[in-house]
Amino acid sequence: MAVGLIAPAQLLPINGIRLSALAAGIRYPDRVDLALVEIAKDSSATAVFTRNAFRAAPVIVAQEHLARCVPRYLLINAGNANAGTGEAGIKDAALCCRALAERVGCRSEEVLPVSTGVIGQRLPIDRIIHAIPSAIARLAPDTWLQAAAAIMTTDTVVKGVSRTAIVNGKPLVITGIAKGAGMIHPDMATMLAFIATDAKISSTLLKAFLHAGVEQSFSRITVDGDTSTNDACVLIATGASETQIDSEPEKLRGRFQGALNEVLIALAQAIVRDGEGATKFITVAVRGAASREEARRTAFVVADSSLVKTACFASDPNWGRILAAVGRANIEQLAIDRVNIFLDDLSVVRAGTLDADYTEADGRQVMVKPEMTLRIDLGRGDAEFHVWTSDLSYDYVRINAEYRS
Amino acid sequence: MAVGLIAPAQLLPINGIRLSALAAGIRYPDRVDLALVEIAKDSSATAVFTRNAFRAAPVIVAQEHLARCVPRYLLINAGNANAGTGEAGIKDAALCCRALAERVGCRSEEVLPVSTGVIGQRLPIDRIIHAIPSAIARLAPDTWLQAAAAIMTTDTVVKGVSRTAIVNGKPLVITGIAKGAGMIHPDMATMLAFIATDAKISSTLLKAFLHAGVEQSFSRITVDGDTSTNDACVLIATGASETQIDSEPEKLRGRFQGALNEVLIALAQAIVRDGEGATKFITVAVRGAASREEARRTAFVVADSSLVKTACFASDPNWGRILAAVGRANIEQLAIDRVNIFLDDLSVVRAGTLDADYTEADGRQVMVKPEMTLRIDLGRGDAEFHVWTSDLSYDYVRINAEYRS
Repeated sequence: MAVGLIAPAQLLPINGIRLSALAAGIRYPDRVDLALVEIAKDSSATAVFTRNAFRAAPVIVAQEHLARCVPRYLLINAGNANAGTGEAGIKDAALCCRALAERVGCRSEEVLPVSTGVIGQRLPIDRIIHAIPSAIARLAPDTWLQAAAAIMTTDTVVKGVSRTAIVNGKPLVITGIAKGAGMIHPDMATMLAFIATDAKISSTLLKAFLHAGVEQSFSRITVDGDTSTNDACVLIATGASETQIDSEPEKLRGRFQGALNEVLIALAQAIVRDGEGATKFITVAVRGAASREEARRTAFVVADSSLVKTACFASDPNWGRILAAVGRANIEQLAIDRVNIFLDDLSVVRAGTLDADYTEADGRQVMVKPEMTLRIDLGRGDAEFHVWTSDLSYDYVRINAEYRS
Repeated sequence: MAVGLIAPAQLLPINGIRLSALAAGIRYPDRVDLALVEIAKDSSATAVFTRNAFRAAPVIVAQEHLARCVPRYLLINAGNANAGTGEAGIKDAALCCRALAERVGCRSEEVLPVSTGVIGQRLPIDRIIHAIPSAIARLAPDTWLQAAAAIMTTDTVVKGVSRTAIVNGKPLVITGIAKGAGMIHPDMATMLAFIATDAKISSTLLKAFLHAGVEQSFSRITVDGDTSTNDACVLIATGASETQIDSEPEKLRGRFQGALNEVLIALAQAIVRDGEGATKFITVAVRGAASREEARRTAFVVADSSLVKTACFASDPNWGRILAAVGRANIEQLAIDRVNIFLDDLSVVRAGTLDADYTEADGRQVMVKPEMTLRIDLGRGDAEFHVWTSDLSYDYVRINAEYRS
């Protein structure tokens, strides 16, 4: 049951992008599990991938391909991550790329393979290759929602968002889709995200935009502290609109970054809102830290604490668990009598101990809400950082204990 | 339901130590929740405490007292951690020490206060002070089991162990008790442990023994990655036996260390076996690491992974989750084609990918066992490290979502 998340009613097409989705029988029969994305010539592209040492085969192949040229196609499957499959997996991914390339008349390296799903099983490439002609035939500009549905695994809600912006009087559109619910963590999360815009942007600038945006979005989410072998976030600029971002002054570039960030943040939050077993959407906001890294570390220690997360599940204002988590964040010479903790705007811990005005009833009123912010002021400086997380529920255990059964 | 753990039938008395336990009504009526330990004069003592920045009041007071003299009494309560209680909490702890000291005719600083339980509530010192005369009256040498029961919180099984050893022809006894089930992590864990021996050992040497022993025991356990504000492990040598360890050659000192480690390891493992919601006792053993720290980090990342732990709960040989956890342990330039993973002695991952001889049925045969070892060989060097952990079950969530309700 996702928290405050409803599937988008529509996603705006991007000139230069066509998509299709169909059931290839990769893991389950009749489940839509294959998406094909066609990217117009002369687009630019950039991507960020998992930093897990066990990068999946498609990640390895996609990174190689992307280093050589701008992709013309993304071939995305759910149900099988093609991870932990060694050299055979790399060949499998390459074979799928080649099969598609031969059909459409492009080079293999112009195809990026993307996989998500179970780790450690060989990819059923016959089924994928068999499905390619239909996938090509069905390509259309208005099938973003279908593609978003195709890449879901333990997701319960389709994730996608569109934003429009006017830069220097000219309109542009950004549409993004994403998947992911478990194995979510800042080293890019078990997530796939594909975002496209019709603005014209050089690959160099596009890369800067994506890195800045990911830092504000996907790098700030955690569901269970685990990272995936397959995380990939691809950003495409087709240049089909008249809006040429590179030639704009920095202030107007900032407007594009702002719109892109809105898309990335909405997608990142959607992953947490649909986090495995989530019943709460929790922002952990740390301020007053001596450094940004200190604020970041503290926020993640609290957000990843199983005890804090089960307290959130129980709507239990168990601030002692927050305090204990802060206490193990390795903050050097933390003066606990300068630490304040708030549930939303309710002061709970003041100067390291219980606020005299705090009542458990007030605390519970905040904690029963589906969305809340745990605010922590370390009283050491001006640095701050916030992350988004979900709670730890019975359903988290059920989902992860039954995933393969 | 603890894994492979039964309460000790008896614990051997230590000459020079007397204990008592009674119900003081600290949190629940009629629950035995107060333990008093009397330590003979001329004993030596050492302790290690939590490194959490939010040290509880009794930890702060105990550290101050211990710095000044060898304790004559430990005053231990369950039900209330006296943590997050600021200056008032420190005064409360000191008042309890003084009340006991006046009754028995020692100095306040000869009393170490120890508390465990809920964080953030004032200690009901009236009830504790009221119970002190009865606690003194009941002191006896053969009440270790009762004291072990008094300090339990979410524990389901009493934890204690005795070992005897012969050093240079002279016998000695070591008896230890411990509590702890949640908030368990290497920075000493939410645990209390009290160990005594009748050997004669200087405080300096005793400290070295304890530090070496803790490194092999309590520093290797994790239930949920959370550390506590109250962790304390106290080791006393009463010197009542004829066995003077200081004057023995190093080899014979090693015999004492060996016996002490057995006690500490049994107590540490007991905490994991009785870990909140535990249905499995899992050893994560990393070898072939480039350094001990690398092995340690890898072992803890795997042991703390919610996905690995839910897979263990489900008896699911989901080795991909182990592999993904290894992959995010920040091992520089990890060559994944040198990584091997075993479930007990069953080869699962060979050279970074699935062993051709592995079958899911074989894997499941290991995983259904209540105790198993996840062996990871990084293929980089000779360093190794192992830790003990439990699985993540519905009951873990239930216990932590309902703890205060």
